[in-house]
Amino acid sequence: MSEAKPFPLNAWYAAAWGHEIKHELSARTVCAKDIVLYRRSDGEVAALEDACWHRLVPLSLGQIVGDDVMCGYHGIRFNSAGRCTFMPAQKTINPSACVRAFAVVERHRMVWVWPGDPALADPAKVPDFHWNDGDEWVGEGGTYYGLKCDYRLIIDNLMDLTHETYVHAGSIGHDAITDTPFDTTHTDRTATVTRWMLGIEPPPFWARQLGKPGLVDRWQIIRFEAPSIVVGDVGVAPVGTGATQGDRSAGVNGAFLAAITPETETTCHYHWNFVRTFRKGDHHLTRAIQVAHVNDGKGLYDEDVVFLQAQQVAIDKNPRQPFYNLNIDAGALWARRLIDRMLAAETEKAYLPSAAE
Amino acid sequence: MSEAKPFPLNAWYAAAWGHEIKHELSARTVCAKDIVLYRRSDGEVAALEDACWHRLVPLSLGQIVGDDVMCGYHGIRFNSAGRCTFMPAQKTINPSACVRAFAVVERHRMVWVWPGDPALADPAKVPDFHWNDGDEWVGEGGTYYGLKCDYRLIIDNLMDLTHETYVHAGSIGHDAITDTPFDTTHTDRTATVTRWMLGIEPPPFWARQLGKPGLVDRWQIIRFEAPSIVVGDVGVAPVGTGATQGDRSAGVNGAFLAAITPETETTCHYHWNFVRTFRKGDHHLTRAIQVAHVNDGKGLYDEDVVFLQAQQVAIDKNPRQPFYNLNIDAGALWARRLIDRMLAAETEKAYLPSAAE
Amino acid sequence: MSEAKPFPLNAWYAAAWGHEIKHELSARTVCAKDIVLYRRSDGEVAALEDACWHRLVPLSLGQIVGDDVMCGYHGIRFNSAGRCTFMPAQKTINPSACVRAFAVVERHRMVWVWPGDPALADPAKVPDFHWNDGDEWVGEGGTYYGLKCDYRLIIDNLMDLTHETYVHAGSIGHDAITDTPFDTTHTDRTATVTRWMLGIEPPPFWARQLGKPGLVDRWQIIRFEAPSIVVGDVGVAPVGTGATQGDRSAGVNGAFLAAITPETETTCHYHWNFVRTFRKGDHHLTRAIQVAHVNDGKGLYDEDVVFLQAQQVAIDKNPRQPFYNLNIDAGALWARRLIDRMLAAETEKAYLPSAAE
Repeated sequence: MSEAKPFPLNAWYAAAWGHEIKHELSARTVCAKDIVLYRRSDGEVAALEDACWHRLVPLSLGQIVGDDVMCGYHGIRFNSAGRCTFMPAQKTINPSACVRAFAVVERHRMVWVWPGDPALADPAKVPDFHWNDGDEWVGEGGTYYGLKCDYRLIIDNLMDLTHETYVHAGSIGHDAITDTPFDTTHTDRTATVTRWMLGIEPPPFWARQLGKPGLVDRWQIIRFEAPSIVVGDVGVAPVGTGATQGDRSAGVNGAFLAAITPETETTCHYHWNFVRTFRKGDHHLTRAIQVAHVNDGKGLYDEDVVFLQAQQVAIDKNPRQPFYNLNIDAGALWARRLIDRMLAAETEKAYLPSAAE
Repeated sequence: MSEAKPFPLNAWYAAAWGHEIKHELSARTVCAKDIVLYRRSDGEVAALEDACWHRLVPLSLGQIVGDDVMCGYHGIRFNSAGRCTFMPAQKTINPSACVRAFAVVERHRMVWVWPGDPALADPAKVPDFHWNDGDEWVGEGGTYYGLKCDYRLIIDNLMDLTHETYVHAGSIGHDAITDTPFDTTHTDRTATVTRWMLGIEPPPFWARQLGKPGLVDRWQIIRFEAPSIVVGDVGVAPVGTGATQGDRSAGVNGAFLAAITPETETTCHYHWNFVRTFRKGDHHLTRAIQVAHVNDGKGLYDEDVVFLQAQQVAIDKNPRQPFYNLNIDAGALWARRLIDRMLAAETEKAYLPSAAE
Repeated sequence: MSEAKPFPLNAWYAAAWGHEIKHELSARTVCAKDIVLYRRSDGEVAALEDACWHRLVPLSLGQIVGDDVMCGYHGIRFNSAGRCTFMPAQKTINPSACVRAFAVVERHRMVWVWPGDPALADPAKVPDFHWNDGDEWVGEGGTYYGLKCDYRLIIDNLMDLTHETYVHAGSIGHDAITDTPFDTTHTDRTATVTRWMLGIEPPPFWARQLGKPGLVDRWQIIRFEAPSIVVGDVGVAPVGTGATQGDRSAGVNGAFLAAITPETETTCHYHWNFVRTFRKGDHHLTRAIQVAHVNDGKGLYDEDVVFLQAQQVAIDKNPRQPFYNLNIDAGALWARRLIDRMLAAETEKAYLPSAAE
């Protein structure tokens, strides 16, 4: 695990929320590559290597001149394709002077960068994150930058919601999650875990959202898209009102959206959102749900962070110890397998089983 | 020194004061092993590896259920022998699922753990620390957790009290310590330094305790028990009243107790106590002596900490430089020799002389 | 760059300002060597290895006894030549007991130490820093201790003042610096960059100093003396008043003095001064110029520190990436070349080109 990088480079990763990138320089590290992002005057986002060709000074310490980036140290300028357009005190520009430009696409309210070979950067491969679009779903969105764990630990976390029973006992946890069998399916790029809990008492969060007494059918349909997107279609409907057959109209439906981007091998960015299709105009509810997730150490996701970071510390101390797995890990194992296949394809080596298998 | 661990594993180490371990989870690191300690309902102390079999999450982040430990992440439970007793969402428990259980003994008001082979953990080998028992000696006891130095530097410090003359000049230091010869004896597991200073002016601390004017006979009888216990029998009596022949009744007698436990190769826990046989009911005195030793950077032991930690920084910078020794180091050298013998026995190699020889 | 030390050891380095060294112990690290400095009662400065022969405790934690240094741990004493003069509890002093004494010279208001072979320490080789002497030039002087960058990055910075145009745009920067050609000359130990900007508008700082309207001739004559001294003769005079022919009497003349001392491979001490020959009695101006340079993050040099430290972070991340160079780097390249020659001479290897070439 320590020899090879744990993340494929030829993939789209969320680098920022679209609204974060303005006509000014923003630094982000994605897959251990330092990147400076900015929005050109035509509205397109540019992504350059955040290190001047000349002396490695971060370009993000400089400024935008027109649509070029000017290094703050000696004034060298690069256009949004990374080509040098100005060198101080000389008329001839060294034609090899450039910084790397990363392929970048803005979609689903996120800025996606491709840290690997730009020739392979196919915009059609941007992960499905459409829940962020339009007005069918409503949410606020947020980000943990620099979470101190391997991005795959968050994927493990989301692909097995058994942990809700223990980590989130007071809000969305429920013994039924642990007690109910689930199905796991997969494609070349996705793995999906489906769990239906029929005729159960709703947990506190969902009982409040539904606003009706009585037992419910609860669903958790978690979809992973390699290498690092997880979307969880979750909700409850009064028992027997047809949700299992596809009619959720009597119930309440939400989705957690997770775009987890490796920063380094042991840190990551966690772009998340919780969106819903009910009471969409209720801004107080939107805010309340946001605060319920991240709230200065007291939110639902904050509860996960404690475990995720402690797990990373333990892994760092025991680098050779493999993980052992339970039945509940079936979804996470498929996610890891799909990541490993991408890694193997990149290294052109035979398929390397991950420590998780 | 950097290749081999500096501490034997097959030995009893003080992991905590008995009163610190309750029916709740306490994390301690002993000899680089992360351990979770708790007291079972029958009063016995259990000590388990602090990393869940499943995904390495520290068990100390979980909770006690009955007398088992439940991991806070996915609810897996282990009994106090380390055997898994519950796995979420599955009826069959993988029989290989377990965490390591450490041998543990509670004695002399301390919890002792044996980080090495449990089959060798003989309770008869718990170090002699009886001064903490019963009511012959009175003291309060305390601990530095996570002192930033190799535990052997504290042993060096205590085995040569010459340093009192310089480090503790204002309280217990005295030129007589430096000027007076001492004897060093040893057994297979102990080394003892005996120094008698006859007919001297008592230093300020002892003058106050004795409460009588005039010259004194002062003794310092320091006993090391491998690998990491030091007990110093110290006191003064009016000159010529028979202390050297064993009659200390006219004097005042104390003992410093040090159970120094390696946390890592370069950090340690220092469990200490200063006990006495005089004015035992005087709680103000008990408190005053405690404060005199550790007092937010201003106590006697705080003075040592500055030197011990600076010494470790210097060793880290100069890893290959050996220590040079003076005559005053005879006791410390024997202590180091006994530790080295334990280390050599564990590695089944020939006797490796330490850098201290 | 990472294999060989980036600094020659057989050279004089400024370790402190003379006024900082009193009859008390001061610790400094020069070229990765921990040194304790103090002034003897005869006024001479002594420089000893800051690690006791006995157990490596920093001598700077001890105290001065007469003109000797006494270790604070066990009282061992060393004279200013590093010879042991007292050992506790023994009459015979081990003749091999000593700490290293460094060659030291006080000159030009600075204390210079020679971290390499004392036999080679020729006081005649102390760099020319005479601007600090006497009353021809006036300044206050100051120091950054522990700047987090390779000392050579500061030399690069000072040898190419193009950066003023960008980093110091509001004070001394000027497009003319970038637009004007410069000459580079060198000797075995020095490299000099000379730039004359004729008939330009003075930048704000110099306009204020000159106090006369109109265009000026501006000069920047930067002299590097290997391995780590840079002196910049800078100023302006009303255009055509003879400054280019050597008559600066109508203008204002200053000099920045930089004695940059490696602390470790990636940190350094920056002793600097800005001195001038005009309005020498104006203490308010002296203070104002000082504050303009270093002012709690808001001064001219503070602007450089941001770039220098960011550059070091980038180098640490990209250890194998070479620097690329522009025409403006001609002076810095000569400085690097002279340092490399000193390094090559020390290692008795063939001339090793630096990454900068």
